[in-house]
Amino acid sequence: MTATATLTDRICFQTHPDRYKHWTLSFEGDIATLAMNVDPDGGQREGYELKLNSYDLGVDIELADAIQRLRFEHPEVRCCVVTGNLDRVFCAGANIVMLRTSPHGFKVNFCKYTNETRLYIEDASENSGVQFLAALNGTASGGGYELALACDKILLVDDRNSAVSFPEVPLLGVLPGTGGLTRIADKRKIRRDRTDAFSTIAEGIKGKRAVEWDLVDAIAPLSKWDAKVAEMSRAMADALPVRASEGVALDAIEPEVEGDVFRYGHIELAMDRTQRLANVTFTIPAGDVPLTDEAALAAGAGWWYLRAFRELDAALLELRLNEPEIGLVLLRVVGAGENMVATDDFVETSKHWFVTETRHQVKRVLKRFENSAKSLYAICDPGTAFRGAALELALACDRTYVLNDPDEEVLLGTSAANRGMYRMANGLSRLETRFLGAPERVQEVLSAASPFDAETADELGLATLAPDSIDWEDELRLAIEERASFSPDALTGMEANLRFAGPETMETKIFGRLSAWQNWIFQRPNAVGERGALTCYGTPQSPEFDIKRT
Amino acid sequence: MTATATLTDRICFQTHPDRYKHWTLSFEGDIATLAMNVDPDGGQREGYELKLNSYDLGVDIELADAIQRLRFEHPEVRCCVVTGNLDRVFCAGANIVMLRTSPHGFKVNFCKYTNETRLYIEDASENSGVQFLAALNGTASGGGYELALACDKILLVDDRNSAVSFPEVPLLGVLPGTGGLTRIADKRKIRRDRTDAFSTIAEGIKGKRAVEWDLVDAIAPLSKWDAKVAEMSRAMADALPVRASEGVALDAIEPEVEGDVFRYGHIELAMDRTQRLANVTFTIPAGDVPLTDEAALAAGAGWWYLRAFRELDAALLELRLNEPEIGLVLLRVVGAGENMVATDDFVETSKHWFVTETRHQVKRVLKRFENSAKSLYAICDPGTAFRGAALELALACDRTYVLNDPDEEVLLGTSAANRGMYRMANGLSRLETRFLGAPERVQEVLSAASPFDAETADELGLATLAPDSIDWEDELRLAIEERASFSPDALTGMEANLRFAGPETMETKIFGRLSAWQNWIFQRPNAVGERGALTCYGTPQSPEFDIKRT
Repeated sequence: MTATATLTDRICFQTHPDRYKHWTLSFEGDIATLAMNVDPDGGQREGYELKLNSYDLGVDIELADAIQRLRFEHPEVRCCVVTGNLDRVFCAGANIVMLRTSPHGFKVNFCKYTNETRLYIEDASENSGVQFLAALNGTASGGGYELALACDKILLVDDRNSAVSFPEVPLLGVLPGTGGLTRIADKRKIRRDRTDAFSTIAEGIKGKRAVEWDLVDAIAPLSKWDAKVAEMSRAMADALPVRASEGVALDAIEPEVEGDVFRYGHIELAMDRTQRLANVTFTIPAGDVPLTDEAALAAGAGWWYLRAFRELDAALLELRLNEPEIGLVLLRVVGAGENMVATDDFVETSKHWFVTETRHQVKRVLKRFENSAKSLYAICDPGTAFRGAALELALACDRTYVLNDPDEEVLLGTSAANRGMYRMANGLSRLETRFLGAPERVQEVLSAASPFDAETADELGLATLAPDSIDWEDELRLAIEERASFSPDALTGMEANLRFAGPETMETKIFGRLSAWQNWIFQRPNAVGERGALTCYGTPQSPEFDIKRT
Repeated sequence: MTATATLTDRICFQTHPDRYKHWTLSFEGDIATLAMNVDPDGGQREGYELKLNSYDLGVDIELADAIQRLRFEHPEVRCCVVTGNLDRVFCAGANIVMLRTSPHGFKVNFCKYTNETRLYIEDASENSGVQFLAALNGTASGGGYELALACDKILLVDDRNSAVSFPEVPLLGVLPGTGGLTRIADKRKIRRDRTDAFSTIAEGIKGKRAVEWDLVDAIAPLSKWDAKVAEMSRAMADALPVRASEGVALDAIEPEVEGDVFRYGHIELAMDRTQRLANVTFTIPAGDVPLTDEAALAAGAGWWYLRAFRELDAALLELRLNEPEIGLVLLRVVGAGENMVATDDFVETSKHWFVTETRHQVKRVLKRFENSAKSLYAICDPGTAFRGAALELALACDRTYVLNDPDEEVLLGTSAANRGMYRMANGLSRLETRFLGAPERVQEVLSAASPFDAETADELGLATLAPDSIDWEDELRLAIEERASFSPDALTGMEANLRFAGPETMETKIFGRLSAWQNWIFQRPNAVGERGALTCYGTPQSPEFDIKRT
């Protein structure tokens, strides 16, 4: 990954089932089948071959797209079978040569993205009325098994060969870091000595023992495979109510690019490379906006609320993977704040599947925002519209700067969006997290007459700093310069520790603990040195370890 | 740290107030004063000067000793004032030159030890009827403020200069990793944008703002300093009941060393350097053992239950810091298992301060055991006595090998110790953690007639593998060889993720999340490279960062 990707080598996150190289998505009534069929020559860049259904970021971008389209475009689906089109192998996990030849920062961001995709499967299962059946028609190793673990049920073919396995520790000297260690311990709650044994058996566990250890839910011989898949998927679908018969097609998010400015429509992303920051501006449309189920559905993918957050999502991925040298995001929200509030309040009360789906999309974008390794400042200056879901964005930031000047109109405000609609990874609302030590302040903010001015926002505890016009420019300049002077790694570690106070969930464990250990190991000579395990795997050389335990 | 320290350069963990170089511990009635007065030339090794009350491992070993003696030797103490003897500076934190010149493994283990010591302060506060007042008579930076955060209350001198600060991110490119980030977010529950701001202000925050942000509990000018310290410590002491008037002196733990064998009395530690493993044998004494408060108190520090676990603690520190090349511990417990059970059951019911104190000591050793970066196998072969608190040790291991042969007597069993007396860092008992996915099994184990044989142990889910005599040697040999063939780093990361399933606490967050990020940063060129921040600090060079965010 070059520091600043040119437009042609930038990673593109937009795709469509018509263009998938690595998956086929097919439908039979209320059951979808998502089959992995990785094109060995279809790698996201040169230099490696995607053998045995191993994957790279490009494969995962298609997977994420498929899950997303299932939710929006196919509300009729109640069960999705995740399976493979290869013989004997379901999926061999992340491609090793790709990992070996990628710089550290890319590896870390690749893992973060794949972790998000796995969590999106679980989010769809929890909130979109669709269950996932991993139908492992062959061995699922490493990331392959991790993908299965994100599904609701796992069926493994019983053919004397096919196993589930975590070969990362024994063969590669790294961790099953796409949630694997967390999910066997905290989702499937497998006995702790067995998780240890399983994670060190390179060839994995198959057949009856895989069921006995609860690594899979069921096995079936090849002769009964199709019938068993059909039976299980049918039962899973039947256990859920029908959501709807017709979906909403998602259009592509393609920004207009002019130099360092990306214009998405509602979102503008403008890179300031001298200061190594990005100005992100979210514009809430004025005028009439949909406030009924019918109007929202009629607007479809063009509904501003859905579209704006999808655009923000696209901008975030752009920043993460194509703009590693940008360290700070200055976020502004402008426009008709009252439309954000009215839409939030409508979304909270709606039971319509499309509105609900949109709500969960907004939730995921907010999480991706605060899970990005960038420092985040919310800038509330004249014309600001940090209200409702936009106030959530401010609360997701590390700091909020509010211009406090009686001559300037700076209004913030609340809506249903701040009352628990958009929970963080820790299970709390952003106000609850912010005021963990003074829970009564949550109600104070929610009860304040909204919108409120800068002075009130400061009194309510929403401003990190609220300078007047005289100090505003200087304070901001200092805060920007200061942030740019710090070690980018120290900032990433600090933010990862401070952003998620309070309770822990599987999700915070994955990003907070498992990923941190993986990042550490991805730096160690025992993995990536000249004779490290990741370097030597698949070559004639065997690894040589520094044997000291740390 | 050399791979295998010679006996003379091994780090020694035994000390006594009479020999402290860096602290003075004094008493006035029920109030103790622990004053930091670091000897600049008293570093634990050559090469750095401990200026401005900065600390190294040697300073922390004395601190841990002082806390330990307070609990056992001074039950009359109800408040301990932690303060400094220098002018204007309370404590400057961990010594930077020491950190810069220490290898990665030592840094990580140093941080783990200091983290444990901070947690021991909180454990004493929770369980030993003694409150800690951090009386910051000058600036407390980095580790200095982290020490204060471990206390119950923080008083800061208000002299226009003295501040509390975390200069790690802005000046050193690392984290306040001795619990600092976790405690400001999860213990003091400070507003999240303020934790961000505070952690980036190198000079820190002082005076009224420190109180307003809840970074300290109170401030006092120099003129009223002594009176305020006296008043606060008096109030803290008075709020607690009196425990006892006379303590129990702790004797030194000095093993007899013969080559690679350390004999402590109840514990033997024998290094097998060829296989890179340590055989640890815990012998439960036969014959009459104390089973009343009076008998335990009469035995004092010689009470086998206290002594044996203190010895195990010493052996663990030996393994961690002086034996980095040992990767695996084979733990055996032998002797009169019924004495362990009887003692556990007695300890559970006793309300005597000394017995209670011993119980918390055993709890801490069990935690240190499973918080060590070594693979842990419990070996249950003929004569085994993994019962009660010893069974907890087996449950703390990554795996348990049980010889299942009708011709051999292999008995395991339960006691009060397995019913929640010894909770893990996650707040659960070890049986609850093991059977997170099948909670009914906890009761099955506890209701089984005890002791039980190998077959029953296996049926109850306590054996990872239960081979018969024919397979025993081979299975064990393979398991040992296999573990030695893996990357030590991958094992450390894997174990850190698998050992603590279930709920998270401040303690698991410190070791699981904060430490992992710090380990990562401690490897990064931005911290430790030629122009890294840690390398350049205090030199004429300024750091140069790889600006890419990861």
